[in-house]
Amino acid sequence: MALKTLAPVKAADLDKELMSSGGFSLDQLMELAGGDGLVAARHLHHFGYKPTIYYPVPSKPELFVGLQKQLKSLSITFTEDFHSSMGSTDFIIDAIFGFSFKPPVREPFPSVVEALAETSKPVLSVDSPSCWDVEGGPPKEGELGAKFMPPYLISLTAPKPSIKFYKGTHFVGGRFLSEDMAQKYDLTVPDYHGVDQIVEAPVDASGGEKL
Amino acid sequence: MALKTLAPVKAADLDKELMSSGGFSLDQLMELAGGDGLVAARHLHHFGYKPTIYYPVPSKPELFVGLQKQLKSLSITFTEDFHSSMGSTDFIIDAIFGFSFKPPVREPFPSVVEALAETSKPVLSVDSPSCWDVEGGPPKEGELGAKFMPPYLISLTAPKPSIKFYKGTHFVGGRFLSEDMAQKYDLTVPDYHGVDQIVEAPVDASGGEKL
Repeated sequence: MALKTLAPVKAADLDKELMSSGGFSLDQLMELAGGDGLVAARHLHHFGYKPTIYYPVPSKPELFVGLQKQLKSLSITFTEDFHSSMGSTDFIIDAIFGFSFKPPVREPFPSVVEALAETSKPVLSVDSPSCWDVEGGPPKEGELGAKFMPPYLISLTAPKPSIKFYKGTHFVGGRFLSEDMAQKYDLTVPDYHGVDQIVEAPVDASGGEKL
Repeated sequence: MALKTLAPVKAADLDKELMSSGGFSLDQLMELAGGDGLVAARHLHHFGYKPTIYYPVPSKPELFVGLQKQLKSLSITFTEDFHSSMGSTDFIIDAIFGFSFKPPVREPFPSVVEALAETSKPVLSVDSPSCWDVEGGPPKEGELGAKFMPPYLISLTAPKPSIKFYKGTHFVGGRFLSEDMAQKYDLTVPDYHGVDQIVEAPVDASGGEKL
């Protein structure tokens, strides 16, 4: 399966188009792509897990305020201490920065990125490992987070350009794109199985733009 | 598993509360409960099926206009002729009337209800078989749709009172209700398995309010 990558500017265009001519609302896209860490936490709770959320800089738009309400009504724990929570968890979902992140990493996140880079616990990053430049890839040697290579990565809708630097287990999610829209944005709709919402998509060792 | 039923007035209250103190938007509820026939059609398309939609009286609110746009961008067929489309389909999803339906059945639906009652093809009804009174159950003998007993029924969030008249295979969906909200509305959160979004919930032969 050859998947093409989606650069941040193109991805923002695609989102805009999905919300105008595509007829999707932001709320719907958030539910379907499942990318936001808050939506993931809610699903994990219903699947029987006990997620703890580190969300030191809450977003102000109504959608995010609503998601926080949902999580609090499920009695899901919010922590301000990433480091001690990390000590007692089995699995970490890194949904800190979106795919439009540009360095440098700002406070309070440098020590968080460092902890993610050092931990031996499994980490799943969403779209692009936090602290990576979405186009340029991981930080240079000696820089903050240079060693951060999470064992798992999930790309929502399509891999982002930094995927060519990624070595690990890669999944794609976001099973709602029409063939028309995929063609227009030169993307490949992966072969999902049955009613699965994600599919494993091995990274091409050649490191090209295509997977 | 003992599931309790949810009367229409209570169900409307629950929706209102989910959207106020619960922090959910209508768009999110629609995606999560999956009840609306339009959302179901979109998922079916992505799962590889070829749904045809009969939607003779389109709803005006933006959410429904958006859903129709999404379906049209997937080139999903809308039909005005329920009867000939029914002839060429393998499976029918009955999401015509919502759970707040009160008789009588209005045009253009009487002949549709008749066809649903007569067909030998499998029918899945959402929340309550269309033409049933959600509290009172199926029409009386001799009335339109009196024989309508679909082989499959899916209750979203909780069974509606008419479930006590239902004989067939019953599922529950809507895996997003908090324990607090379930307690407040005296509902049971069913035992979903793994990451399943629905679960089969056998109907109690005693025909009581509880399943």
